[in-house]
Amino acid sequence: MMTAEEIPGSRTEIRVRYAETDQMGHAHHMNYLAWFELGRTELMRVNGVSYAGLEDEGILLPVAHAELDYRQGAGYDELVWIRSRVKQVRSRTVTFAYEAVRAEDEALLARGTTTLVCTDSDLRLRRIPADAQRVLEQLKRAAEGESSGDDVPAPDRERFS
Amino acid sequence: MMTAEEIPGSRTEIRVRYAETDQMGHAHHMNYLAWFELGRTELMRVNGVSYAGLEDEGILLPVAHAELDYRQGAGYDELVWIRSRVKQVRSRTVTFAYEAVRAEDEALLARGTTTLVCTDSDLRLRRIPADAQRVLEQLKRAAEGESSGDDVPAPDRERFS
Amino acid sequence: MMTAEEIPGSRTEIRVRYAETDQMGHAHHMNYLAWFELGRTELMRVNGVSYAGLEDEGILLPVAHAELDYRQGAGYDELVWIRSRVKQVRSRTVTFAYEAVRAEDEALLARGTTTLVCTDSDLRLRRIPADAQRVLEQLKRAAEGESSGDDVPAPDRERFS
Amino acid sequence: MMTAEEIPGSRTEIRVRYAETDQMGHAHHMNYLAWFELGRTELMRVNGVSYAGLEDEGILLPVAHAELDYRQGAGYDELVWIRSRVKQVRSRTVTFAYEAVRAEDEALLARGTTTLVCTDSDLRLRRIPADAQRVLEQLKRAAEGESSGDDVPAPDRERFS
Repeated sequence: MMTAEEIPGSRTEIRVRYAETDQMGHAHHMNYLAWFELGRTELMRVNGVSYAGLEDEGILLPVAHAELDYRQGAGYDELVWIRSRVKQVRSRTVTFAYEAVRAEDEALLARGTTTLVCTDSDLRLRRIPADAQRVLEQLKRAAEGESSGDDVPAPDRERFS
Repeated sequence: MMTAEEIPGSRTEIRVRYAETDQMGHAHHMNYLAWFELGRTELMRVNGVSYAGLEDEGILLPVAHAELDYRQGAGYDELVWIRSRVKQVRSRTVTFAYEAVRAEDEALLARGTTTLVCTDSDLRLRRIPADAQRVLEQLKRAAEGESSGDDVPAPDRERFS
Repeated sequence: MMTAEEIPGSRTEIRVRYAETDQMGHAHHMNYLAWFELGRTELMRVNGVSYAGLEDEGILLPVAHAELDYRQGAGYDELVWIRSRVKQVRSRTVTFAYEAVRAEDEALLARGTTTLVCTDSDLRLRRIPADAQRVLEQLKRAAEGESSGDDVPAPDRERFS
Repeated sequence: MMTAEEIPGSRTEIRVRYAETDQMGHAHHMNYLAWFELGRTELMRVNGVSYAGLEDEGILLPVAHAELDYRQGAGYDELVWIRSRVKQVRSRTVTFAYEAVRAEDEALLARGTTTLVCTDSDLRLRRIPADAQRVLEQLKRAAEGESSGDDVPAPDRERFS
């Protein structure tokens, strides 16, 4: 059984850029949305769902909802790990959950969720393509620490929510 | 009685920058956090609470929580109004609520809330200074469409939440 | 005769956003490229050349070259004026020059130039459309403090270059 | 003899973020300034000059001048290498030169230079600390393909300028 930590692509490393800091001396809070985006596209790409590829087919995944909790600031030049997982998959939406932790001591900096809707290039809602949905479902089950045939949620399933 | 619309500083106008668009053809979703920040600092400054001034006194207001709902995209060069109001004030936190609407037709593009915590320059929690708190309380009541001595919430009080 | 200052759209006002500051306590130097872009699109739009409109016709104006000189920092919440003018127009390129000055005291913060090339939507070079070129030529002459039939450069013609 | 390519820290890899794209479908041109900054801080840190460390000592290196030439666009999700080298060191300034190349085919996307000035925390000019200057001088000579005792410039010394 695979733990959430071991899902390929579930951890993206970024280094806080000077341009991302603000005068409080940490990365400005809006950057986490860019980092989480980096995390989910990495998770998807490594597992065979290329967001760039979806766009080439005229399929978009705009963000419809985002929630962020900030705990500690991320300092300039610090390494930060973005841990991404699929939290929920529906026919037209997918929700990812994220943690940003400082690489040095794994201190939690922030966590959050984003819900994406599947649309065509005119932003009309449509179903997530079957292949992508299957991968997302597998990633969701893996994140729950389940084997793929197992419907029982892991105890820590909702630790982000 | 003042309506929420008439509170000085409650509407900030921005024009969507090319640099803010992404390849989906609209402003990237992270920019709303910068726009909302612009909205709340404008609301505060116009009403006598300068965020720059607070920082000079060693008082910071980092964002602890943010929620965003996205409805429609904001196109390049479009004028967008950010409507900001105080939703909740506590001794150490203040929550602002926002709407981003397209100026041309007042279509709702996004809405959201951010909760800020009051800290000293070492990011230790502290009480919001009394002067600032009084202003924030007044802004909250004004946003609720109440006269200042009136505790009955206006019917649309919770339209954001 | 119109002076450069009086050209409609030649001055764009921005307020430095918190998100634009860095931990040195001023707007990060990359933001000037976004501000200059805001300046030139304002200058063009007010004078009848909509960049959004050009894009709808499949005409792009990507930046091919940029130069920036930084003199003083722009502080959070400060009002900054971006003064934009057309410096050179050729069949396939146009160069804009900019000054960023602090509104309060008109202190020079930065100046720069950007050269844009005209391309089709596949980024192949093409001529600037005749209408746009005519406007850009007029803006160039106006910036030089010339009447349109006057080839003698104003004394301060090259103050940016 | 070390070639410029082999200088530790002279190559930084970034992946183009969705948030960095604009509606032309490539990374917005301002991001290169953030990427170049990432490149030079990596080059400095790996060679023993921590920019974060300098700031802790009250020494800042704000950008005074920047020049950028753009050749091709950087697409979303593409890997880009930033090659950084020291081009010139003076007592109070240091100039870095950069190339951004697409990792896949090493196509040149952009190149540029930035000149930084050394200041104290009040932005007053000061000399670059001796230790940092020595490292920067070594990096300059290494970039020129010279052994450290060799003053003859390599033939391709000025290929960026």
